[in-house]
Amino acid sequence: MTDTHPRFSRRALLGATGAGLAAGAAAGVAGSSAMGATDTHSSDVVRFRGTHQAGITTPVQDRLHFAAFDVITDSRAELTDLLRRWTVAADRMCRGEETVAGGAVGGGPYRPPSDTGEALGLSPLSLTLTIGFGPGLFGATADAPQQQDRFGLGDRRPACLAELPAFPKDAIEPSRSHGDICIQACADDPQVAVHAVRNLARLGVGVVSVRWSQLGFGRTSSTTTAQATPRNMFGFKDGTANVKADQSDLLDRWVWVHHDDNPTAARWMTGGSYLVARRIRMYIEPWDRASLSEQEQVVGRSKGSGAPLGATAEFDTPDFRLTSAGTPLIARTAHIRLAHPDSLGGVRLLRRGYNFTDGSDGFGHLDAGLFFIAYCRDPQAQFVPMQHALAAKDAMMEYITHNGSALFACPPGLAADEWWGQRLFDD
Amino acid sequence: MTDTHPRFSRRALLGATGAGLAAGAAAGVAGSSAMGATDTHSSDVVRFRGTHQAGITTPVQDRLHFAAFDVITDSRAELTDLLRRWTVAADRMCRGEETVAGGAVGGGPYRPPSDTGEALGLSPLSLTLTIGFGPGLFGATADAPQQQDRFGLGDRRPACLAELPAFPKDAIEPSRSHGDICIQACADDPQVAVHAVRNLARLGVGVVSVRWSQLGFGRTSSTTTAQATPRNMFGFKDGTANVKADQSDLLDRWVWVHHDDNPTAARWMTGGSYLVARRIRMYIEPWDRASLSEQEQVVGRSKGSGAPLGATAEFDTPDFRLTSAGTPLIARTAHIRLAHPDSLGGVRLLRRGYNFTDGSDGFGHLDAGLFFIAYCRDPQAQFVPMQHALAAKDAMMEYITHNGSALFACPPGLAADEWWGQRLFDD
Repeated sequence: MTDTHPRFSRRALLGATGAGLAAGAAAGVAGSSAMGATDTHSSDVVRFRGTHQAGITTPVQDRLHFAAFDVITDSRAELTDLLRRWTVAADRMCRGEETVAGGAVGGGPYRPPSDTGEALGLSPLSLTLTIGFGPGLFGATADAPQQQDRFGLGDRRPACLAELPAFPKDAIEPSRSHGDICIQACADDPQVAVHAVRNLARLGVGVVSVRWSQLGFGRTSSTTTAQATPRNMFGFKDGTANVKADQSDLLDRWVWVHHDDNPTAARWMTGGSYLVARRIRMYIEPWDRASLSEQEQVVGRSKGSGAPLGATAEFDTPDFRLTSAGTPLIARTAHIRLAHPDSLGGVRLLRRGYNFTDGSDGFGHLDAGLFFIAYCRDPQAQFVPMQHALAAKDAMMEYITHNGSALFACPPGLAADEWWGQRLFDD
Repeated sequence: MTDTHPRFSRRALLGATGAGLAAGAAAGVAGSSAMGATDTHSSDVVRFRGTHQAGITTPVQDRLHFAAFDVITDSRAELTDLLRRWTVAADRMCRGEETVAGGAVGGGPYRPPSDTGEALGLSPLSLTLTIGFGPGLFGATADAPQQQDRFGLGDRRPACLAELPAFPKDAIEPSRSHGDICIQACADDPQVAVHAVRNLARLGVGVVSVRWSQLGFGRTSSTTTAQATPRNMFGFKDGTANVKADQSDLLDRWVWVHHDDNPTAARWMTGGSYLVARRIRMYIEPWDRASLSEQEQVVGRSKGSGAPLGATAEFDTPDFRLTSAGTPLIARTAHIRLAHPDSLGGVRLLRRGYNFTDGSDGFGHLDAGLFFIAYCRDPQAQFVPMQHALAAKDAMMEYITHNGSALFACPPGLAADEWWGQRLFDD
């Protein structure tokens, strides 16, 4: 579990030794430059280390920058060296510090700054950085059968870290899908999230390269009961029945990987979770032409209140048995019914998705939708059957297309001095 | 000048008559659904009507959704009808209301909702909607010589509403450029800005279609001295010398169109301003490999403090005469020198740009940069010479490419009951 607690604020800059150094040192006229304005908050640091990674049960921050990387080296040593360096930088950035002390200007005039600097003056803003490892890191996959086991990790692959199957109506684009490593950066300011991903990408030059990235402008789910459920691009509340951070029994059953879930070689995942990412394009223009009745039937909720049809408030339990003149009030094809645990043998997920709008699609329409993120203990047993059921029957499929897909194994949280992936790579 | 003043908060929904109607009316079990949670602020409404359009001198909001539309009808009546309907909806949305009263669910079950609903429960969050008209609306342009004068507006074109010329090193992509009408939506929450553009697009079905759109995640400039200058994707403060909202002499000289600037037929622009939009891709990876000295020489400022080289604080006046061993402290090719009014015959602009990150570019790099927006009284006399000077000499050109470009004439603000474009279309 992660806590939000006061700690540090992002370090403002830096008087005599840094700012203006390049010119000032030569001319002897600078060296006392003013500090940047610092927006200091006392309660916006999320603890980076702990039993589980932050960014899973952490109260969902407002903004997301998600990046998937390809590993472009075959050297295990280069990769683990990067993971060590990433860990130090991530730990610092989550405290609101630069990637290295005095990073933006402290390295002297003749070296590239160690921090790109665009988050200077901003507080930590609840930044979390969550790492995951993709199937390709462990050798061949169904999707990439030629992939070598470059890093000798083949026997460490958890059984359920297999590429997701193709679902009906999928239109998966490889350039928006897969990846060897992912970083989920969430913060209450996009500049902080973008800065973090960019600096990790920069540290990774020669070792990893950005395969795809996705900006999410607004959260669509809640992981605490204190957070209101936001509306998605269809104007509806969804994911009301999300697993919440204080439901430790549900987290234990549906989110965190158990010791006995894997054979010994894959026990580095104990306490971790699997991240499923799906880029769901929402065809908002035809949706907007659908009648209110059609929209509510598709979703199975009232648009205004978010209540299940036939109920009165958002968090009321949906009653799927209600009928009107023999017809189910919540249609058999309604999203809320098909995605409900009762329709899926009790299966639950922890959702953490974001709305996106990526310009227009070249045909006069906005390229908008939901960047779906879910965490689960076993994606093959939780997400896959759910998505098969939805893809086959969900009335909403008429208005959406899944065009990006990825699966990552997110290891547990870090102990003091531990580095990202240490339990995976260490023998 | 626009004011921020308390007024309304976005209307929460709607009990018995709307929510759950589709099913509830049939089943007789719903109809008393709970109201959505409303996040009410008292000071986040920006006045929609006034002498000038809001969104120009308004304190720059945190988020942007900018959309350029092609007009796809040849009917003047259809276009002016849309502009009337847009005005009503825009006026309402800027007060935090739905596009029409009870829009999301009040129209009954058998009609599409009049509001898409994803901003329900959000306050106005300082939404401004600023409209502009592109050169193509007035007939042929250098860029589109075949364009008919479909709406009989040829004689109403202001002389300076001509497509921008090609600048050295431009790599303009038509799919990110031009447009007949633009809407600049700014707000302190992206969902509110996206909702506004989307609902205007929806109202425009059959009359306009989205040509391109751009999300900006963070402001890069200030229009009041109370706002700190944020950092751009190069980690620097830029645009410090921006025209500010309280500099009425500078606004009058450099931003607002005067009565005598145009012949009678084009006097609908009096009190308006021209909007220049440029999508500037920033090559952040090579930038991040440049030394601090190189970066500071390119920009002409200290990275840490934002002070001009040789000075001590961000708002110090740069002294371009300072030298060190005969070499200018602020290089002859430095961005701050070339963009400074002193290098441009005193020319000023009002900048209102935003940082963007649009995923990755397919080559392992983030597609990030600055969506430059500037307002000026005469783009041909202000922006064009500035950009020619920068494109020819600015050391920063090594690290950026302009790949989108557009120019729009933004009419003055609206009187009571006036509609967008009324002075342009009315004879």
